[in-house]
Amino acid sequence: MTISFARGAPSADLLPIEELADCARVALERDGKTVLAYGSGGGYGPLRDWLAERHGVEPERVLITNGSLQAFVFLVEHLSAADGPARILVEAPTYDRPLKVLARLGAEIVTIPLDDDGLDLDALEHELRTGPRPALLYTIPTFQNPSGRTLGGERRRRLAELAGEYELLVLEDDPYGLVRFEGEGEPTIFELEGGRRVAFSSSFSKTVAPGVRVGYVVLPTSLAQAITELAVSTYISPVLPTQAAVWEFIRRGSFEPNLSRVCGLLRERRDAMLAGLDRDFPPGTMWSRPQGGYFVWVDLPDGTDAAGLCERAAEAGVSFVKGADFFPDGSGGSSARLAYSAEPPARIDEGLARLASLLPEPARA
Amino acid sequence: MTISFARGAPSADLLPIEELADCARVALERDGKTVLAYGSGGGYGPLRDWLAERHGVEPERVLITNGSLQAFVFLVEHLSAADGPARILVEAPTYDRPLKVLARLGAEIVTIPLDDDGLDLDALEHELRTGPRPALLYTIPTFQNPSGRTLGGERRRRLAELAGEYELLVLEDDPYGLVRFEGEGEPTIFELEGGRRVAFSSSFSKTVAPGVRVGYVVLPTSLAQAITELAVSTYISPVLPTQAAVWEFIRRGSFEPNLSRVCGLLRERRDAMLAGLDRDFPPGTMWSRPQGGYFVWVDLPDGTDAAGLCERAAEAGVSFVKGADFFPDGSGGSSARLAYSAEPPARIDEGLARLASLLPEPARA
Repeated sequence: MTISFARGAPSADLLPIEELADCARVALERDGKTVLAYGSGGGYGPLRDWLAERHGVEPERVLITNGSLQAFVFLVEHLSAADGPARILVEAPTYDRPLKVLARLGAEIVTIPLDDDGLDLDALEHELRTGPRPALLYTIPTFQNPSGRTLGGERRRRLAELAGEYELLVLEDDPYGLVRFEGEGEPTIFELEGGRRVAFSSSFSKTVAPGVRVGYVVLPTSLAQAITELAVSTYISPVLPTQAAVWEFIRRGSFEPNLSRVCGLLRERRDAMLAGLDRDFPPGTMWSRPQGGYFVWVDLPDGTDAAGLCERAAEAGVSFVKGADFFPDGSGGSSARLAYSAEPPARIDEGLARLASLLPEPARA
Repeated sequence: MTISFARGAPSADLLPIEELADCARVALERDGKTVLAYGSGGGYGPLRDWLAERHGVEPERVLITNGSLQAFVFLVEHLSAADGPARILVEAPTYDRPLKVLARLGAEIVTIPLDDDGLDLDALEHELRTGPRPALLYTIPTFQNPSGRTLGGERRRRLAELAGEYELLVLEDDPYGLVRFEGEGEPTIFELEGGRRVAFSSSFSKTVAPGVRVGYVVLPTSLAQAITELAVSTYISPVLPTQAAVWEFIRRGSFEPNLSRVCGLLRERRDAMLAGLDRDFPPGTMWSRPQGGYFVWVDLPDGTDAAGLCERAAEAGVSFVKGADFFPDGSGGSSARLAYSAEPPARIDEGLARLASLLPEPARA
C-alpha cells in the first residue's frame, strides 16, 4: 500500500473510536430530543458555551460548523456579498483548500510571503500601506499548513497591532495549536488583539477525530449575527449529534488524555521524518522543524522538479503534495509538503528512503 | 407553552431516540475507522449504495449532504457559477428557505402558480415557450411545503415530457413522499422522466430524524461530478457518523416500522387539524386536505390580514407562518401555513379554537 505523506489526516490508531462510539450513544440518550431535532444554527449549546468560556467571549460569537472549512466559506461568502469580490491576503504558501474556495468565489488573492519565523510582517505592512484595502487576512500562525512554520511572539504582537492600525480583519486559523509536542506556545493573535478584528477558527479534527466534522469560528461581535444567519440559511442547523458526542468526550475528561496520547504518537512520527530527511536527503535540501502539527515543508535542491518527483514517487508507492499546490501562482516548484500524521515511524523511514532514491542524480549526495 | 403550527418539525415523540443512540454506537464501533476519518465527499458508501439501488442509478450520481437544503445550495451555486445569476422557476407558494437562498445568490426568481392539483402546467409551458431559458425548475410535487398539495398523475407525466421538450432541468424535492397516510402515491417525476434532466432530492429528516442532517440529491450524470466537487471544496466530507447511524437503522430493519409509527401519529394530527378547521373556522375559509406530509394551507376569508392574525395569535400562544413568507412577491396575504407535525391532537384542537376566535368579526361565522 502506498506510503502516504500526502494527506493531512490522522491514521486510524490516532482516533479514539471505541470511546467516541460510547460518547455518541450517551449523548443521544441524554439529549436526543435536542440534537435529533432541528436545533440551534450556531451549534450545540453546551459545546458552544464551553468554547465561549475557553475563548473569553459570549456564546453568540461562537459558530460551530460542519468542519472549519465551512466556516471559512461562510466568512468569505459574507465578505463577498457585502462588497463584491473580496480582496483577500493569504500566506504564501498556504493551505490549498481555502485557495480553491477563494478562486471559486471570485476573490482577488494577494500573497504575503513566509520565512522561517512565519508571515513576513514587513511585506504585510507594505501591502497594507500601499495596496487597496483588503477584506481579510487569512493566516495559520501555528504549525502552519503546509509549511509547519510558527509565527514568532514578536511578530504576533506586531500583527495584532497592525490589525488595529489598518482596521484589518484577520482570520487566525488554528487547527494545530493544541497538537504541540514540545516547547511553549505563544499567545494567539486573537488573544493579543482582544478579538475585535481578529476572528479565530479551529476544529476537533486533529484533537478528537476529523470525521465528526466539528469545527468552529469565534467571530468579531459585528460579524457574528450575519454569519450565523448565513449558516442557518445554508443548512438550517449543523449536525448536532457529533457535536454532542464531542462534548460528552470533553465532559467526561477524555480530551486532554487523548490529546497527550495523540501528541506522543505524532512526535515519534515527526522525529522519524526529521531523522529520515537528515539521513537520506542530499545536501542543499532544506526543511522546517515543527514543534507540533502534521507537516514538514521541504525545499529540494535548486532546480529539482517536485511535480516530476511526485509522479515518480507515485510509481514507487509514495505520495506527497507538491509545493506548487499551495501557491496561487504556481511557485514552489522545488518544494514539497510531507505529512507525518498518517504513517508509523517505520513506514516513514521507508517512504523517505524511497523518495530520496528518486531524486535526480545531480541533486543526490 | 406556545402551541406551534409554525415549524415543519416533528415533535420529540416522533423521533426514535433510544434506537438511534444504539445505531450510532454500533455504526461507530463497526466502521469508525472510515466514518471518523476524512471520508468520501459523496457520502457514506453503504448508504449511498442503498440509495442508488433504490433510485436505479449509479452511486456516483447520489450526493449525500448535511441536510437536503445544502444540496439545493450546491446545485444553485453550480448553476450560477456556470452562467452568472441563474433564472429559476419556483412554485407559488413554495418552501421559504430555498427562496432565501435564491435571493442571497442573486438568482432571478420566476413564479409559476399552483392550484389544487399542484403546479399549473399551462402556466409553466407558457413561461417555457415565451420567457428566457431558465436554469432550473424547483418543485415539491408531493405534500408540498407549504401548501400540502400534490401534483396529479397526468400532470406528472406532462411535466416529465416538458422537461425533455424544453431541455428543462428540474429539481424534484421530495422530503414528504414517504410520509403518506392513505391513498396510492403517483410515480415521481424523476421515475417518469428517467432522471436525465430531473434531479431528485429527499432526506431522512421526516422519516428518521431531522437532527441527523442526512439529505441527498440524485443528480443527472452530467452534473454529478461537478456538484460533488463543489461539496468537497466546501466541507471536505459530510458528517459520516450520522449517515452511518441512519444506515444501521435501515440495515437492522427499523426504517419501515418506524415510518409506519410516525405516519400513524401524523395521521391523527392531520385528522385533528382538518376536523378543527371544519368545526371552528368561518364560512369562506378554504384549506387543503393532504394525504400525507406536515402541512395544511389555509386561505382565510377574503380580506383577512394573515400577518395581523399571526401577531395576535402569538399573544394568544399560537404560532403559524403567514402565507406571504412563501411567495417572493409578498402575495398570499390572506393565507397561512399550519403545520400539524409538532403537536398532539388535543393541542391542535385547542390551538385552532384559539386561532378561530382571533379572526376579525366580519369573517367569523
